[in-house]
Amino acid sequence: MLNFAFFAGLLIFAISSAYFYFSSKNEDGFNTAFLVSFITLISYVLMWQGNLTVVTSTGEPIFWTRWLFYGLSCTLLMLEITQLKKIEGGAQVQLLYLTAIVMATGFLAARDLTAIRWVHFVISSIAYVLLVMKILSVKTAAADWIHGYIFFGWTVFPIVFLLAPTGLGLIGATMANLLYLLLDIYTKIIFNIQLGRKSV
Amino acid sequence: MLNFAFFAGLLIFAISSAYFYFSSKNEDGFNTAFLVSFITLISYVLMWQGNLTVVTSTGEPIFWTRWLFYGLSCTLLMLEITQLKKIEGGAQVQLLYLTAIVMATGFLAARDLTAIRWVHFVISSIAYVLLVMKILSVKTAAADWIHGYIFFGWTVFPIVFLLAPTGLGLIGATMANLLYLLLDIYTKIIFNIQLGRKSV
Amino acid sequence: MLNFAFFAGLLIFAISSAYFYFSSKNEDGFNTAFLVSFITLISYVLMWQGNLTVVTSTGEPIFWTRWLFYGLSCTLLMLEITQLKKIEGGAQVQLLYLTAIVMATGFLAARDLTAIRWVHFVISSIAYVLLVMKILSVKTAAADWIHGYIFFGWTVFPIVFLLAPTGLGLIGATMANLLYLLLDIYTKIIFNIQLGRKSV
Repeated sequence: MLNFAFFAGLLIFAISSAYFYFSSKNEDGFNTAFLVSFITLISYVLMWQGNLTVVTSTGEPIFWTRWLFYGLSCTLLMLEITQLKKIEGGAQVQLLYLTAIVMATGFLAARDLTAIRWVHFVISSIAYVLLVMKILSVKTAAADWIHGYIFFGWTVFPIVFLLAPTGLGLIGATMANLLYLLLDIYTKIIFNIQLGRKSV
Repeated sequence: MLNFAFFAGLLIFAISSAYFYFSSKNEDGFNTAFLVSFITLISYVLMWQGNLTVVTSTGEPIFWTRWLFYGLSCTLLMLEITQLKKIEGGAQVQLLYLTAIVMATGFLAARDLTAIRWVHFVISSIAYVLLVMKILSVKTAAADWIHGYIFFGWTVFPIVFLLAPTGLGLIGATMANLLYLLLDIYTKIIFNIQLGRKSV
Repeated sequence: MLNFAFFAGLLIFAISSAYFYFSSKNEDGFNTAFLVSFITLISYVLMWQGNLTVVTSTGEPIFWTRWLFYGLSCTLLMLEITQLKKIEGGAQVQLLYLTAIVMATGFLAARDLTAIRWVHFVISSIAYVLLVMKILSVKTAAADWIHGYIFFGWTVFPIVFLLAPTGLGLIGATMANLLYLLLDIYTKIIFNIQLGRKSV
């Protein structure tokens, strides 16, 4: 069952990579939707392979590589969000740095099985709150539809992290990885399809 | 003999680093030829040191650090190629991302001894084909001499990868590393000397 | 006592992160002083946690993660220095690359317990000398106060590296980490406070 989520993710993101590559109407040549899917595809291959994990005391595997790949794919998503919100220059670079810090400290929290992982989790959460506050504070009527993606997509990731073996262990690794797959589809594929439609 | 290729590489790239540093006529201050050689020098020191390898079932060592350093040096080479071809903006950033993805998945394929390494190899190859197609599609009369470097330099790397212990194992680690050394000299030193002459 | 330096660092950089975040008068939105402190905070949490070390033959632990975080924080400091010195374009990018190379080879030298670490140390030192020579060669009357920070701050790092268990082992890990803490406070907090005052 664990493998099912990873194999499904592998197939879905292989298809979405091809879709975004061939459907791009972007004149600029920087196809972020494709790159986000392609990087996520690599991440799912690595989790499907399955040997880069730490195992908790209750025997649940934690796939910590996930967070390293989010460091790459989510900075690209943040680039799309800031372009949509017309956040430019230094403020944009700041948001890209904060996104990378959220994911890098998420990686540290995921790899660590001791109580100190909560310190990493708190630091990651602080960076995330600073990031969300900044995005919500910029009002751009045409781009406010993305707030839904932030609230129901991005913010559910740390909640799953908290419930999963990485945090309190209230749900198992299989359930956690299925939830992450749904979130990945929502924030990386559906978001980019909607982004493509809005920008026509 | 293994050590010979690495020690020779170390000496050659130390000399080319010094050469490109002192011979630079670049007014801009960004000396990519020097940085490519200097990063490759560090890569050869690490392989000469020799403790960061995985060993195949037939006892051949694989020096996977090589591909991490290519991630840095080849994005710099790609920057030179795109500047020469006048590929700018989003299309340029896309090519830098694809180059980094080719090398990062090459690293994953090199580290992995199971059959799943072929999945990484296929993904790396797809990224490489997308990259080459893009470069060849941009016609710039003055820059078409670089096509030879792409075909006889860059494209031979995955062929060596395929023949070496990382792939089918038809040649040994010693031969593979000698071939990589020749390719490194061709694509990172001879290319940059020719680039310097053309731009005078 | 080892833990003391790390816990003190953790507290100090948590406070300085908050201070630089709330005191910023930067209109641009890119708060480098905050990011430098925040990244250093994460580095101190990881060293306080204490399980990512190599141990020398005399039983002294080396906290090699430090140098990876310097790779991030010191490129941000270098960005501040180049902006102050009005070094732009290619020359600025070159200095950011050199800074990252100094820290990455410092990481390789710190992780390695064999004699080959001296090769990494020499390469790191060459990159550092090239970097310092470039900065000192650009005369900008209003920015020459930073030369003191380079000489008494940055240049003391490799001296501590040389005296510490990473080098000759003339001082122990506890003393080395206390000295690094003082240097971190000087180059990352006091420097940024002074930078804030000068730019009013």
